[in-house]
Amino acid sequence: MARDDRGVTPQSEDFSAWYNELVTKAQLVDRGPAKGTMVIRPYAYRLWELLQAELDGRIKATGHENAYFPLLIPESYLRREAEHVEGFAPELAVVTHAGGKELEEPLVVRPTSETIIGEMMSKWISSHRDLPLLLNQWANVVRWELRPRMFLRTTEFLWQEGHTAHRDEADAMAETMLALDMYVEVARDICAIPVVAGEKTPGERFAGARSTFTIEGMMRDGKALQAGTSHYLGTNFATAFDIRYTSDQGRQELCHTTSWGMTTRMIGAVIMAHGDDKGLVLPPNVAPYQVVIVPIGRGEPGEATAGAARDLAATLRAAGVRTHVDLRPQLSPGFKFNDWELRGVPVRLELGPRDLAAGTALMSLRLGDEGKQPLPLATAAEALPGVLAGFQEFLLRRATEFREGRTTTVDDWPAFTAAVTTGWALAFHCGDGRCEDEIKAETAATPRCIPLDGPPAEGHCVKCGSPSAYGKRVIFARAY
Amino acid sequence: MARDDRGVTPQSEDFSAWYNELVTKAQLVDRGPAKGTMVIRPYAYRLWELLQAELDGRIKATGHENAYFPLLIPESYLRREAEHVEGFAPELAVVTHAGGKELEEPLVVRPTSETIIGEMMSKWISSHRDLPLLLNQWANVVRWELRPRMFLRTTEFLWQEGHTAHRDEADAMAETMLALDMYVEVARDICAIPVVAGEKTPGERFAGARSTFTIEGMMRDGKALQAGTSHYLGTNFATAFDIRYTSDQGRQELCHTTSWGMTTRMIGAVIMAHGDDKGLVLPPNVAPYQVVIVPIGRGEPGEATAGAARDLAATLRAAGVRTHVDLRPQLSPGFKFNDWELRGVPVRLELGPRDLAAGTALMSLRLGDEGKQPLPLATAAEALPGVLAGFQEFLLRRATEFREGRTTTVDDWPAFTAAVTTGWALAFHCGDGRCEDEIKAETAATPRCIPLDGPPAEGHCVKCGSPSAYGKRVIFARAY
Repeated sequence: MARDDRGVTPQSEDFSAWYNELVTKAQLVDRGPAKGTMVIRPYAYRLWELLQAELDGRIKATGHENAYFPLLIPESYLRREAEHVEGFAPELAVVTHAGGKELEEPLVVRPTSETIIGEMMSKWISSHRDLPLLLNQWANVVRWELRPRMFLRTTEFLWQEGHTAHRDEADAMAETMLALDMYVEVARDICAIPVVAGEKTPGERFAGARSTFTIEGMMRDGKALQAGTSHYLGTNFATAFDIRYTSDQGRQELCHTTSWGMTTRMIGAVIMAHGDDKGLVLPPNVAPYQVVIVPIGRGEPGEATAGAARDLAATLRAAGVRTHVDLRPQLSPGFKFNDWELRGVPVRLELGPRDLAAGTALMSLRLGDEGKQPLPLATAAEALPGVLAGFQEFLLRRATEFREGRTTTVDDWPAFTAAVTTGWALAFHCGDGRCEDEIKAETAATPRCIPLDGPPAEGHCVKCGSPSAYGKRVIFARAY
Repeated sequence: MARDDRGVTPQSEDFSAWYNELVTKAQLVDRGPAKGTMVIRPYAYRLWELLQAELDGRIKATGHENAYFPLLIPESYLRREAEHVEGFAPELAVVTHAGGKELEEPLVVRPTSETIIGEMMSKWISSHRDLPLLLNQWANVVRWELRPRMFLRTTEFLWQEGHTAHRDEADAMAETMLALDMYVEVARDICAIPVVAGEKTPGERFAGARSTFTIEGMMRDGKALQAGTSHYLGTNFATAFDIRYTSDQGRQELCHTTSWGMTTRMIGAVIMAHGDDKGLVLPPNVAPYQVVIVPIGRGEPGEATAGAARDLAATLRAAGVRTHVDLRPQLSPGFKFNDWELRGVPVRLELGPRDLAAGTALMSLRLGDEGKQPLPLATAAEALPGVLAGFQEFLLRRATEFREGRTTTVDDWPAFTAAVTTGWALAFHCGDGRCEDEIKAETAATPRCIPLDGPPAEGHCVKCGSPSAYGKRVIFARAY
């Protein structure tokens, strides 16, 4: 494959083309045959596994248990919660035939599992001693997608969905926020994305929720991406599915439930929050390979460097560093360097005969001004974990500065429209859904969230001038 | 809940009732609303996770990479391989409507993924340098089930499916056997089930395979359970999906492919290979809790034992022992003992005020003649890993002796029919499919496998007297 064939359109020229070319050329994903479906290739799937392990560990450490609920849900279940079915009906895939016969009642392929898990909760909960019930599921879901985009909006995606039941609103709200905190932590500490946590405005709530919380990350084109949501469902699903418990005073009470999810969309967030014109830039904590070693030389010197590369890789792996040796004989070192830049590996080590003689490797980071630096082989295993941690920190700092630099506090309409062209606007809003719609129609910007840590403030709606709602400024942005 | 309500029908009375009651009462599973579907509850799902981790580690260590392929497959894909579609057509669930419209081409919910992965392999493979391509997927599949049985035959189940492509038959056959070896190892070393590995007779092959290999375990009613299969697919799918490579001589060649899978059925195998009239008996290597501590006493002494139990649990967990403390205030110690016996926890530690004063806990194993023995608290963390390893070995030994005791070498029809009533028959068979059918009609026994390690031998078919096929004896048994 020629070099040109592997390059991608620069971000500044066409961010969307950059993304679409990159996810294919970096071998992250392929189109599936059914509309909007994707094949997650090994490199991207490994990233997902690393993310999963981090999130799953946090989910278990906070007392949740994993379980698995059926993919196929009777259509009637969804209808029991009016808002829920209204929100999901247009996106459903429906099984009408099975085992060679037409089904008496069609089954939907789960778009989310509140209904079927609600049905089970009503069987499993009887006493206040059964609460809280803290469940989580790792699964695939299907939502028919008319404008698919790999990882970001696909007809089928992978996710975890937490579903919990509680005795009262306070306990359920605490759970909703605990889940949100896990998402903030995973986004920030693992994916190096400094997300903003906040509440959705009523128009952006999950179908059937009393309140929806979100984490929003800024991509390198200034757009926002919703990277995880946590919902307080009130007693809506408990009413629809009869999820009740006997209180310690012997009364029958409705449970308060929550649900929360993070998806393979997060892979898209990592790509767009860090990538550049050379390709992916992967945070070490989710990089399938943290270090790639490229041995250099042909013939006998090449065998020596290849052998030394293998030894070094074994030492690094023993030190917990995910290391890959690129031994492809048919490719030049230059091609390999470009290839691993495209695929976003944080650290590259070149190992030529002269390096080997000097007892060093030439180290390059995927980003930064350091250039190539000699790394002594004898102490590489001690040095690299620190280098990787530094690179992880650097990415988070860079992303934080980028987000801050592109977030503007605005109080008038021209400033608002300018701000959402390149980034986020912090603005007062009246809280009226029709006003939100007008803003969207004119600028493509939507209210991303009412930030939890936004200082209390009052003012006039940036669009219509009415008194502000929410007691603080709202983040508006164009979004994925 | 009263004691009687939690007991199960004795195995000797009705093995099937024992199983059905146990999977529900031990809170492993619940029925889903759609026919034949199941909810995998946390206790069983944790067992699955432990099994997954063991198998996934082996899959990765042998060079396979995980990926994810779409759930929904165009119906036309399945038709490209004639035997494949014939085998699976009666079991398909079909999506005909999505996004509010009727689809132009129906999509099937994957019953297995040879077709969609074959389509992708043809895109990804061009040169001999791309081979072998070693892929694995953890996923859910749907096969419409008319006679469902929890874990054993369910409309939806979870599994891993390995899919690999190779340059020739020898390489693909080596892969087929490598996968089978992993299954033997996981069954034996993790699940304590001494499975027999062998080849299926032509009538029992996977739809579209050139040869199918299986591991078969004996359950405690003497029946066989197929616990994993590995298929050499020849060039059947490579032909149907045009999976070709350019050889080092520059010729276009068809790939030889394999596929292999292990499923949540394995949970059923663990239950039926080890369980008894008191309930589950879990091998420590897949037990969600390896040790349960039941503190005893009310009031102040109860608080002291509960505190000591928590401390002991922390020490044991730090030593890598999966430990649970049963602090449910409303339940008596006797109820708890029965409950954890029902749920198959290998080791129970009782901790009463007198034990605490003596610096010991009373240890009981789930099986065995040792009765209750004092275990010094100070050295419990050192002692228990050995106790658990011993229990794991004991279960494997017991199961091996059971299988050997119930496997009979038979050379005439009366001995055959007697043997398959209580266990397995090792018999000569002519290899004729119609003769297999007659045996099944008369005895419900089927050829389970031609054991790989069976000694070469010739004779006359136990049913029809014709000369034997396969060059060795075949295992016949009734099966799940």
